[in-house]
Amino acid sequence: MSLNLTILGCHSATPRVNAYPTSQYLEINNRHFLIDCGEGTQRQMRKYKVGFSKINHIFISHLHGDHFFGLIGLISTFGILNREKDLHIYGPKGIKEITVLQLKLSKSWTKYQLIFHELESKESELIFEDDKVTIYTIPLDHRVYTNGFLFKEKPKLRKLHIANIQQYDEIETCDYHNIKAGKDYVLSTGEVVMNDELTIDPPKPKSYAFCSDTAYKPSIIPIIKNVDLLYHEATFLNDREDLCEKTKHSTAEQAATIANNANVEKLVIGHYSSRYSNLKGFKKEAQAVFKNVELAEAGNLHSINSFPVKVLN
Amino acid sequence: MSLNLTILGCHSATPRVNAYPTSQYLEINNRHFLIDCGEGTQRQMRKYKVGFSKINHIFISHLHGDHFFGLIGLISTFGILNREKDLHIYGPKGIKEITVLQLKLSKSWTKYQLIFHELESKESELIFEDDKVTIYTIPLDHRVYTNGFLFKEKPKLRKLHIANIQQYDEIETCDYHNIKAGKDYVLSTGEVVMNDELTIDPPKPKSYAFCSDTAYKPSIIPIIKNVDLLYHEATFLNDREDLCEKTKHSTAEQAATIANNANVEKLVIGHYSSRYSNLKGFKKEAQAVFKNVELAEAGNLHSINSFPVKVLN
Repeated sequence: MSLNLTILGCHSATPRVNAYPTSQYLEINNRHFLIDCGEGTQRQMRKYKVGFSKINHIFISHLHGDHFFGLIGLISTFGILNREKDLHIYGPKGIKEITVLQLKLSKSWTKYQLIFHELESKESELIFEDDKVTIYTIPLDHRVYTNGFLFKEKPKLRKLHIANIQQYDEIETCDYHNIKAGKDYVLSTGEVVMNDELTIDPPKPKSYAFCSDTAYKPSIIPIIKNVDLLYHEATFLNDREDLCEKTKHSTAEQAATIANNANVEKLVIGHYSSRYSNLKGFKKEAQAVFKNVELAEAGNLHSINSFPVKVLN
Repeated sequence: MSLNLTILGCHSATPRVNAYPTSQYLEINNRHFLIDCGEGTQRQMRKYKVGFSKINHIFISHLHGDHFFGLIGLISTFGILNREKDLHIYGPKGIKEITVLQLKLSKSWTKYQLIFHELESKESELIFEDDKVTIYTIPLDHRVYTNGFLFKEKPKLRKLHIANIQQYDEIETCDYHNIKAGKDYVLSTGEVVMNDELTIDPPKPKSYAFCSDTAYKPSIIPIIKNVDLLYHEATFLNDREDLCEKTKHSTAEQAATIANNANVEKLVIGHYSSRYSNLKGFKKEAQAVFKNVELAEAGNLHSINSFPVKVLN
């Protein structure tokens, strides 16, 4: 079980040479997801060696350019690279129309299947599930319809306590599956061996919540409660908290307050306004409320494992 | 009079870390134009210090992504930067629909005026004219409707031959405008002083032709005849000339043949296929036909003046 988040871009809209807009690559339980896709994302994927063929699901939070203007280029590039696998795209209603129009005008229909999952609900909903991972929306408060996304590993099977199992000669290897699934074992004598004698707890499933862009919205706390890793936007410092209501963004302190009240393990903040040339204030103001904070930076790998942050370049 | 061409990107579609798709910034006779706008163009403009506020006219050759996927991001950024001046966009029919849809979905209407000049003609046509410059389309042969663009300085006024003028006491400063415009001067005696005695030729007007993307198309030669600078795509080397017909691209040799037969002063080639990791063959194969060839490279400034090529970074 592992959770690795690679920041591909983490700045807000105004472009600068080394400030890419929002995009993240998430590996969770051997599943691979792209979250948001600002202009230049495909370049950043190349730079940080994110395999194009691993991406089968792309999640777009909202239709502001700094979160999705790179999507059409990536879709086109997949076509150029002769992709054959389906590509699933999750995002606000309208994302299909805009993508299809661009492909039509450029006469660049993809040979692979594009499958759109257009989102409209204002309540958190399950939008993806397989045997390893579930993904829910996190309704946010921004100037346009916006969702964050909650990625959760499914609970693993319990681990066998081999030493204890070996006390019972009649338990065979073929019984292990049921025991790992949590079932008690009934001996031939009719005696019941409780499962918690035969197994130990599996690792706690990992979870990641992505919340960008949004004004301070405490009502998301029950949805993201206890996640291992939270990315929350922090566009402003307290000096310009006055802009938050108008622009529907958050301060670093507000992001940290969400993290603290949701009891998350670790917070990563980003989406810094270009008005701040030095980012130190973001960490300082967040840490006044919540200690375990990292500043997002393109090329950083945040792992919920042994190495908390690794620099990829 | 000057003509300066800055290459912002010159590679074909497949993205790589340091290979940006087509975009060029042209200064001609103190006018400033952006030609094509692949993904990442705004980043390249920042990198090579092209002032955003100088751009009032953008020319899009065709609606393949590597030539226009950066346009919507640039338009949005102009909005974020509180642009007030009109922005004129010239490109194939459809460019308005796609731009407007993206602005609508992102609820990011620009406060400045966007003025679209949609092109449909298959003949060369005048699409821009002011007191300093004229711009014509160059119909190309590609998989979708595509135009190159011919930028021409307007002829300057003739230069005064002061020493000769001073031979005639009655010629006043207020007569200079007519003389510079080429008129003869009639003395009070009725005698006519021919204009070529009073003036010398002005510098030859400069011209630039941009031709990308296109299969080999000799019928463009009369349109681009004698230009000072020609950019012509060269996607393939002779080893893959077989791909030209299918993909509607040119080889380096074909680009050079066009340059040679059009009697241009200097040729710049680009839009290299990503199959070639080494670009030396492009120059070699082009120079076998036409000597004065440069390989396009992002950050290079091609001047029709004293310094033929300057590296900006």
